[in-house]
Amino acid sequence: MSKNCNDCACRLASEVSQLKAVVNAQSKTLTKLIKQMKDGCKKADEVKECAMSGLLNPCLKCLKPDILYHLGMDTETTDFPKVFGDVRFVIMGGTKGRMEHFAYYVMQEIGLKINAATQLRDMAEAGNRFSMFKVGPVLCVSHGIGCPSISILLHELIKVMYHAKCQDPVFIRMGTCGGIGVEPGTVIISSEAVDGRLNPAHEILVQGAIERYDSTLDENLAIDIKLCHDPCKDRYETIIGKTLCAHDFYEGQSRLDGAFCEYTPDQKKSYLEQLEGQDIKNIEMESLAFAALTSRAGIRGAVVCVALLNRLKGDQIQTPNDVLCKWEKRPQELIARYIRKVLYFSDSDEAEEMEDDEEPNESRKVSIQESQGASGDTQKDPEPEEEE
Amino acid sequence: MSKNCNDCACRLASEVSQLKAVVNAQSKTLTKLIKQMKDGCKKADEVKECAMSGLLNPCLKCLKPDILYHLGMDTETTDFPKVFGDVRFVIMGGTKGRMEHFAYYVMQEIGLKINAATQLRDMAEAGNRFSMFKVGPVLCVSHGIGCPSISILLHELIKVMYHAKCQDPVFIRMGTCGGIGVEPGTVIISSEAVDGRLNPAHEILVQGAIERYDSTLDENLAIDIKLCHDPCKDRYETIIGKTLCAHDFYEGQSRLDGAFCEYTPDQKKSYLEQLEGQDIKNIEMESLAFAALTSRAGIRGAVVCVALLNRLKGDQIQTPNDVLCKWEKRPQELIARYIRKVLYFSDSDEAEEMEDDEEPNESRKVSIQESQGASGDTQKDPEPEEEE
Repeated sequence: MSKNCNDCACRLASEVSQLKAVVNAQSKTLTKLIKQMKDGCKKADEVKECAMSGLLNPCLKCLKPDILYHLGMDTETTDFPKVFGDVRFVIMGGTKGRMEHFAYYVMQEIGLKINAATQLRDMAEAGNRFSMFKVGPVLCVSHGIGCPSISILLHELIKVMYHAKCQDPVFIRMGTCGGIGVEPGTVIISSEAVDGRLNPAHEILVQGAIERYDSTLDENLAIDIKLCHDPCKDRYETIIGKTLCAHDFYEGQSRLDGAFCEYTPDQKKSYLEQLEGQDIKNIEMESLAFAALTSRAGIRGAVVCVALLNRLKGDQIQTPNDVLCKWEKRPQELIARYIRKVLYFSDSDEAEEMEDDEEPNESRKVSIQESQGASGDTQKDPEPEEEE
Repeated sequence: MSKNCNDCACRLASEVSQLKAVVNAQSKTLTKLIKQMKDGCKKADEVKECAMSGLLNPCLKCLKPDILYHLGMDTETTDFPKVFGDVRFVIMGGTKGRMEHFAYYVMQEIGLKINAATQLRDMAEAGNRFSMFKVGPVLCVSHGIGCPSISILLHELIKVMYHAKCQDPVFIRMGTCGGIGVEPGTVIISSEAVDGRLNPAHEILVQGAIERYDSTLDENLAIDIKLCHDPCKDRYETIIGKTLCAHDFYEGQSRLDGAFCEYTPDQKKSYLEQLEGQDIKNIEMESLAFAALTSRAGIRGAVVCVALLNRLKGDQIQTPNDVLCKWEKRPQELIARYIRKVLYFSDSDEAEEMEDDEEPNESRKVSIQESQGASGDTQKDPEPEEEE
């Protein structure tokens, strides 16, 4: 009984803390809004160029329209700055279901509400490939399986950021993986992605020649996300470590249960132990392309995966489905806490100090845009009088 | 007006021909059914081992249960021989929508009906990755984008065939592609798949070493499918040719409209012309893994794609959506005709001759199993009295 009471008190304390954060953020939003109205909204009209544009394909400027085929969008029929200009976080995961769930979850966690008569729309439905949900500054997108699939999505999402003139967006992939020597249920944030030969590079064939791109990830972002782990509350470990990215689930990950298997159980064991000796903490299938493409665009990127099993102890995922579902939510919780921290804690004090700055950080406008309902999506601020 | 009359007559003639084929097949089914009832169904109980089993992973026998994680199935809770034992055609395509559409289309084309109170169920829904619909002997499955994605599906589908003891199934991937020097809308059946360096081999990294697997496709199957093209009726070309399989849609296919592009338009032009000179007819993203894995399992495989554009003339797909939808149906039409031909024309005469054979070809049992409703799926034969 006393345990239940403690749990209850703990939950209430957490809710109070969350509500205080929202109230705090709303007060600041109102202050800024009033100030902006007094200033005649002059600064809001000055839209900066996208900071990454110097790193991207120079031909992009000439594409009129640019057709983002797999997202089912183009620059002629979609007003990218209006619809996506406020995006600060692009969160990706394998399946539509996971990303739709995360979109509603993060909406609640960052204190946004949706009109009771509406629901989130899959904005990439016309492309028939990926799914995309937008919750204020958070874009939640499914990427399918493997580097070729996520590479198409990243090319098109980076172009979305470019056309929308987004400032310094953060990209995070969240997913599931096989752990190496870690307890199932552990969350692993990748320090870097390596290929099957342990090289930290993503190789692509361009016009018949191999091109190699660095696959390191943003160290500070990994630390910031890890800091969102609460050792008192979270009954699992969160670690930072190297990730092996395979291009196949069975032979590429040395499993014994594929349709084909040309190695012995001993060879498999010895290979996985060798990976453990090289400090590889997990194996998944998208981190190489994710790290290489975000890094080329100068985008801060992180990969946060939960281990569904310890590969040193088996190949098949035998954990009951309800337990797997709980584990899958762990990366979502950490990422939502990170987003909330950036939106309502890290920036707010800084924002107050910078209010008279000549060049305001574009990213701080998010909560204002949300209140104004000007971001072109369906999210509305909790205050009914602010609904359009 | 006279053109319309001709069209009408042509359509009626085609319907008459289809109906005759169905009537013919049903008569044979009834004859066989009566014979089988007289024989006490002795032969039906003798289920042969799957012919491909010698080529597959020897560890499969020991997996109790075998969990097909991405299909959301396992050998403990699914009776594979009962549910999938009658499968003769496994048709794969990129998206769920395309495969669901094809499932209903092929149902109509092979004369099967579904109970009015039911609909096809996505049998792989629990896996959250791929979609699977079963229409009698035809399994229709979505494979996502790229070789890693289709390789997972193929490992698990080949295991489905093994556990279900399917006899000599045919695997066909249907999709869209970029054509090289061909008219948009042309259907290309791949003679073989080559990688970005034009090698006819699928390379995978296994325990740190590159393994190469032959990526040729079944020549006779390609010809058989091409023969289903009707030059009088089909206002497009169907050709057989080499297919380049890329692992990326943008740089890997030398497009100028990706987020990154480090080559000039002239270099792109020269590369694509070089491909044309090497008899490459199209570029897509799954044929290497498809060809290598089907070939390793001894499965006859074909890749049938429609070209959405001629890459020598551009990169972006600007054709209106309604035209693209019509083009996407072309591979579906050819494949449905091929399936109908195998089920009702090629086999039927042969079947009559072989009725007294001691070892009947398992594949000929399909229509019987359909009539008995014994295949564990929701399809029913058109005759109401035969419904369970």
